[in-house]
Amino acid sequence: MKQKKFLLPESEIPQAWFNIQAVMPNKPMPILNPATREALKPEDLYPIFCEECSRQELNVTDEWIPIPEPVREAYASYRCTPLVRAYDLEKALGTPAHIYFKNESVSPAGSHKLNSALAQAYYAKQEGITNITTETGAGQWGGALSYAAKKFGLECAVYMVKISYNQKPYRRSIMNTFGATITPSPSMSTRAGKDIITANPNDNGSLGCAISEAIELAVTTSNCKYTLGSVLNHVCLHQTVIGLEAEKQMELAGEYPDTVIACFGGGSNFSGIAFPFMRHNIKDGKKTRFIAAEPASCPKLTRGKFEYDFGDEAGMTPLLPMYTLGHTFKPASIHAGGLRYHGAGVILSQLMKDGFMEAVDIEQTESFKAGVLFAQTEGIIPAPESCHAIAATVREALKCKETGQKKVILFNLSGHGFVDMGAYDQYFGGSLQDFHISDEELAKFIKSADDLNK
Amino acid sequence: MKQKKFLLPESEIPQAWFNIQAVMPNKPMPILNPATREALKPEDLYPIFCEECSRQELNVTDEWIPIPEPVREAYASYRCTPLVRAYDLEKALGTPAHIYFKNESVSPAGSHKLNSALAQAYYAKQEGITNITTETGAGQWGGALSYAAKKFGLECAVYMVKISYNQKPYRRSIMNTFGATITPSPSMSTRAGKDIITANPNDNGSLGCAISEAIELAVTTSNCKYTLGSVLNHVCLHQTVIGLEAEKQMELAGEYPDTVIACFGGGSNFSGIAFPFMRHNIKDGKKTRFIAAEPASCPKLTRGKFEYDFGDEAGMTPLLPMYTLGHTFKPASIHAGGLRYHGAGVILSQLMKDGFMEAVDIEQTESFKAGVLFAQTEGIIPAPESCHAIAATVREALKCKETGQKKVILFNLSGHGFVDMGAYDQYFGGSLQDFHISDEELAKFIKSADDLNK
Repeated sequence: MKQKKFLLPESEIPQAWFNIQAVMPNKPMPILNPATREALKPEDLYPIFCEECSRQELNVTDEWIPIPEPVREAYASYRCTPLVRAYDLEKALGTPAHIYFKNESVSPAGSHKLNSALAQAYYAKQEGITNITTETGAGQWGGALSYAAKKFGLECAVYMVKISYNQKPYRRSIMNTFGATITPSPSMSTRAGKDIITANPNDNGSLGCAISEAIELAVTTSNCKYTLGSVLNHVCLHQTVIGLEAEKQMELAGEYPDTVIACFGGGSNFSGIAFPFMRHNIKDGKKTRFIAAEPASCPKLTRGKFEYDFGDEAGMTPLLPMYTLGHTFKPASIHAGGLRYHGAGVILSQLMKDGFMEAVDIEQTESFKAGVLFAQTEGIIPAPESCHAIAATVREALKCKETGQKKVILFNLSGHGFVDMGAYDQYFGGSLQDFHISDEELAKFIKSADDLNK
Repeated sequence: MKQKKFLLPESEIPQAWFNIQAVMPNKPMPILNPATREALKPEDLYPIFCEECSRQELNVTDEWIPIPEPVREAYASYRCTPLVRAYDLEKALGTPAHIYFKNESVSPAGSHKLNSALAQAYYAKQEGITNITTETGAGQWGGALSYAAKKFGLECAVYMVKISYNQKPYRRSIMNTFGATITPSPSMSTRAGKDIITANPNDNGSLGCAISEAIELAVTTSNCKYTLGSVLNHVCLHQTVIGLEAEKQMELAGEYPDTVIACFGGGSNFSGIAFPFMRHNIKDGKKTRFIAAEPASCPKLTRGKFEYDFGDEAGMTPLLPMYTLGHTFKPASIHAGGLRYHGAGVILSQLMKDGFMEAVDIEQTESFKAGVLFAQTEGIIPAPESCHAIAATVREALKCKETGQKKVILFNLSGHGFVDMGAYDQYFGGSLQDFHISDEELAKFIKSADDLNK
């Protein structure tokens, strides 16, 4: 019997996260205070984030950051996650490529998001915080944080992007079951939300807007901290458990990836699977390709601009040096809610700029076509976000079919689609749309970032 | 770090299923032809089922039945499933009991059902069948069979109980994604369905009725066989991979269960976790208790009668010796659709009669209360069916708290509840009902079985 899954016991859960900032040839440019344009120090972030997360955010020296034992214990409820050889997908594509995927969908919340949620909730509890708040797009991060908060005994308030709140009622129910309070965003409960509703009463919401609301709640509530599910350096750090495990598992499989692929919203699951392998490109001369699969309707890496921008719509965050579509960007209503974000994480943007990674854009219908093929061959119904990684994988595997190259492709299955079946219904019903944004339209949004860089 | 999960590599997937019929002190009474009242032979079942399944159904001699290698290979996409120690649930209950659960929710279809679906689809393919059909209640069996059919290259038609079809649209979408055709039952596509609709145009459907429709389709279509997801001996046989793995995993944990618990619809997941341990009660003098958790609104084991009855509503099946509420029983509209069945499997009924197992009945609200506690402690949102097993586990664990006994309890987490979040919404909204059925009402239904035994 050919081995299908490569498993590790929970004793192999990594002891430390890999901090790629320590080995980057060009360190990320500083995060700036928008008023003074001075580089931020960790203590400048304390009003918003936990202190430990703030320090991790700006730590460019320690290559390895120990994972606290209670976080490892919490990881043990689902980690190490399986690495799986997609034999049936390979066969269906007729490709000589070897396709592997890391299955992060087995986590309680159904996605990789729990890897950082547990860490952030743990640090909050340690620092005497009682309440945490956040935004969520598709609801995967919100679900993960809700469970993590319950696990460590914290109250949790989630601002959920309004379109997802309406499209994905089951995600709401999941957060509710884990004991969180959920508010659709934009809401009337914050000044940021009220401003957006005033400007456009029918606003569908965006991650950028929900972030503004959650930050406002955190800074105006005592004993309450904000948490973020992607983009930030410490979130990408926490996700590296994915790739660190995958590295050992690829060894068990006797292979090393030529290509590593993940979908890309703010960059968290991409960082998780990519960074541990990328360190061997940086340090050991390996030549692995890293491909970020972003939605064609939210093309920050393929069509965005590298410059300073806000991380949120209302401009409450520090200025981040990143590939951005402008913080006023209004992403189309694709089902992959977790990819509807205007910017790429700071570390990722620098790596992109320096040529360590590349990006492709995927139309919504192409992503679901690939997702259905994956479901019918490998049996797992993927989240709409993960469908983008699968589509990029299919493209690469078909190239191998043409050239006859037996490449080893590894992609991250960031989550399952059990709560996104409405999107699959639309796909089969033929009503799923692709969204095109013209250069002119895009330029208008990017101007909101340009204006900050004058 | 305390070990949380006990894993086995896929090389440890059992090589053979355990056939409890071979070791039962009293063999099950024969299955009868309703017209002649003669005991059925395997060949009498060939028009309905695959030949190999028909032989397995009536095999009372072979203790071990080899698992074909392609089925083991298909199992490898999710097996061996984890055995998990529920430390956080124990802590929340303040019980000295050690609680373990076997996590069958990690299968592609989200439940244990795939264990038999893959076997049945494989045998069908081997025997040159092109189409398979079945019924489904909550949709777990239908989802599993849809994927299994796709896996082995068969067409699949599913009759889905109408109330579940309407309550659980995501389950439909899952079957659709795996390429199956789904019809709500009762339907106008069969004579059985038309008769039921004629008698009651608003009939919500039942497993018994959907079975009638699927059997009718199978016997009136060439090259088409019927498959069943529970009740039958060969289905219970296929599920024993659950308990066989759990036995090895409990050994890894250094414990042996005092109590084994599973929810009970027709008996498939119960058989799966229980039979391998029960063989040590039968053969080696072990004293493990086996508790079937059935819904109070469908109490076949606690309030039903042991006698011959039809397996379906329209009376198309052979006569089965079983605990039954009468084949005309109309189960209340509980969310645990998989438990809405009037009878218990033949083997299970004999074991119940002979005192090898016991049963408890659980109200719907009690089941969800336990399910929410489990979700908030262990992080997995359980299927409404599995909530019954959890509720029975909570009862036993609280008894241990009273007595101070440090019992080892093992339950089967048959599936996850990601596609049942609407039920959780109702629970939190306070609109979830319990259903009471009086002795008088019950007697009327049981009379439909009594009449067959005169």
